[in-house]
Amino acid sequence: VTATLAQADTQLTTVDLREQVGAVLDAFLTGQAAVLRGVGHELEPAMNALREALMVGGKRLRPAFCYWGWCGAGGDPREPGIVLAAASLELLHGCALIHDDIMDGSDLRRGLPSVHRRFADLHDAKGWSGPGEAFGTASGILLGDLCLSWCDELFDACGLPAGRVAAAKTLFHQMRTELIAGQYLDIFEQAVGGSSVERARRVIRYKTAKYTVERPLQLGAVLAGADRALLDRYTAFALPLGEAFQLRDDVLGVFGDPARTGKPAGDDLREGKRTVLVALAYRAASSGQRADLERWLGDPALDSAGVERLRAVIVETGALERVERLIARGTRSAMRALLETGLPPGAGRALSLLATAATDRAA
Amino acid sequence: VTATLAQADTQLTTVDLREQVGAVLDAFLTGQAAVLRGVGHELEPAMNALREALMVGGKRLRPAFCYWGWCGAGGDPREPGIVLAAASLELLHGCALIHDDIMDGSDLRRGLPSVHRRFADLHDAKGWSGPGEAFGTASGILLGDLCLSWCDELFDACGLPAGRVAAAKTLFHQMRTELIAGQYLDIFEQAVGGSSVERARRVIRYKTAKYTVERPLQLGAVLAGADRALLDRYTAFALPLGEAFQLRDDVLGVFGDPARTGKPAGDDLREGKRTVLVALAYRAASSGQRADLERWLGDPALDSAGVERLRAVIVETGALERVERLIARGTRSAMRALLETGLPPGAGRALSLLATAATDRAA
Repeated sequence: VTATLAQADTQLTTVDLREQVGAVLDAFLTGQAAVLRGVGHELEPAMNALREALMVGGKRLRPAFCYWGWCGAGGDPREPGIVLAAASLELLHGCALIHDDIMDGSDLRRGLPSVHRRFADLHDAKGWSGPGEAFGTASGILLGDLCLSWCDELFDACGLPAGRVAAAKTLFHQMRTELIAGQYLDIFEQAVGGSSVERARRVIRYKTAKYTVERPLQLGAVLAGADRALLDRYTAFALPLGEAFQLRDDVLGVFGDPARTGKPAGDDLREGKRTVLVALAYRAASSGQRADLERWLGDPALDSAGVERLRAVIVETGALERVERLIARGTRSAMRALLETGLPPGAGRALSLLATAATDRAA
Repeated sequence: VTATLAQADTQLTTVDLREQVGAVLDAFLTGQAAVLRGVGHELEPAMNALREALMVGGKRLRPAFCYWGWCGAGGDPREPGIVLAAASLELLHGCALIHDDIMDGSDLRRGLPSVHRRFADLHDAKGWSGPGEAFGTASGILLGDLCLSWCDELFDACGLPAGRVAAAKTLFHQMRTELIAGQYLDIFEQAVGGSSVERARRVIRYKTAKYTVERPLQLGAVLAGADRALLDRYTAFALPLGEAFQLRDDVLGVFGDPARTGKPAGDDLREGKRTVLVALAYRAASSGQRADLERWLGDPALDSAGVERLRAVIVETGALERVERLIARGTRSAMRALLETGLPPGAGRALSLLATAATDRAA
């Protein structure tokens, strides 16, 4: 009973945090809306699209890791500055999603039209001149650029001691460069049609594990004045957890329920994403299975029969089972590292719940 | 003779500054190359493309305004920190150019393939899978994002007193939001096929005058600890000058010599850019001239006869002459404001030379 109560208590805090992050973003966006309105009322649709992209849905996972990284390093859980810094990560993430959707040609995000799609549709509905797709792409590029600029602005405004903000900013810059480099590695791998497990895991490391878990935790820790030893312990927890999180995402991208993921069934297969799941299927495929992979993977016109066939190959080659084992192993390894870190009980519990939520989910 | 010598002296300093900015960028990029190499050797082409985009050509106009804004506010001309801060503006500009070229579908920049074009060509040359255009666009988006992130990183690293950097950062953030908002206004105007002189001037104000002249000058001034009065005097100089600079750019986009601009003849006409030049032509057009504008402007297949016809309309409607008058008037007004500001002689001379170079040029 005590354990359940303690858990309920932490979960409440996690919900509170999500609300606080939402409130910070809301106030920040209201301020930016005034700046954009100063440039012209034509910016209204851009502001609305950004508000929806940043306020609707979203697990606020990166702010949560940042906040608990702070608490785990002894930071005051009631310090408002850490919520500002943590919320800034959602702006970076907003840019990553908006630009990713352009790069992947994804028309849906959380069940709603993606930003570039929305502007392409607006263009066509109004009968404006030139191709609607190009207007959508251009709008998406610019709106992502706004988010990318704003994440610095919000982080810079957190109001925590200048020396610590400066130290954290160094890590922040490194995180961004790693994220973007990881994204490049991802599109490169997709273009060369690679099926290397090693390279797929490297993409995960930079594009997800560091960006989603390790760096946010460390940012919180550095802002709280943590020493190098804690940063390294966070790494030992974060990297296996972040990998498991992305592997879960990859499984959902192939087998997930569209009603819960907000994406069409088998979307990752249609896009030809070079995930660890796919790389493992390639590695263990018979020549017939390989032919199916070559033929269907990345076909934009892939129908439900094709999706079923590829799913069958992924199951029959044992790739799905192997990935589930990797997820379980990564989660266990993260939990072990967490226990060894010896965090204050509140932060330890919250991080262990976050770890479970990140790896054992349906959307 | 004294005047000529003084001028020669200042020009030498301007050349020195350009070299110093280049050296700062070179060292910064070398550091980032190590980070990217850590992610993977696959990033090599990305790093090479960024180096070329940022190091080859370029007037380094924004760093120059930032530096002289600092000197004009009494900052030490030999302070290395101001060169770091000034150089960071080139990274922001790198992002603006790389993303602009995607949005405009421009294949050339300074006579070389634009970044997205280069990656589309690489894709096709290697025979990678999927459409080369999409790979080019994705690469261009990511490389622009790197530049946008890096401009903060370099600015944050300038090493000037923290309080002044924080004050300047507020202005820096505002500049970026205004720039991106101005770019949105630009693509919006192009999509709606607008011919409003008022709106075209508003685009110039945000996309060029503030971003290229006013904010860089003010950034330098704030870093040097200037008061509000000087910032306002810089505005009085910067806005008419910045407008004249962009109007000159618009004239070159239609009438410029491709050998000097590095862009195909009449490129702006092919793209259908909604410049003040075009808006003034619309306003004064006869019904026949208007029909020509409607028919040819923004036609991607516009041939040299079409370019000639549109040029003729712009000349015959008096639009070219009017724009030349606006350029002359803006430059005069800027020079008057500069004189009234009473800057130290070195900074005053340098800014007046920059103003001339910005408005009276062939490339």
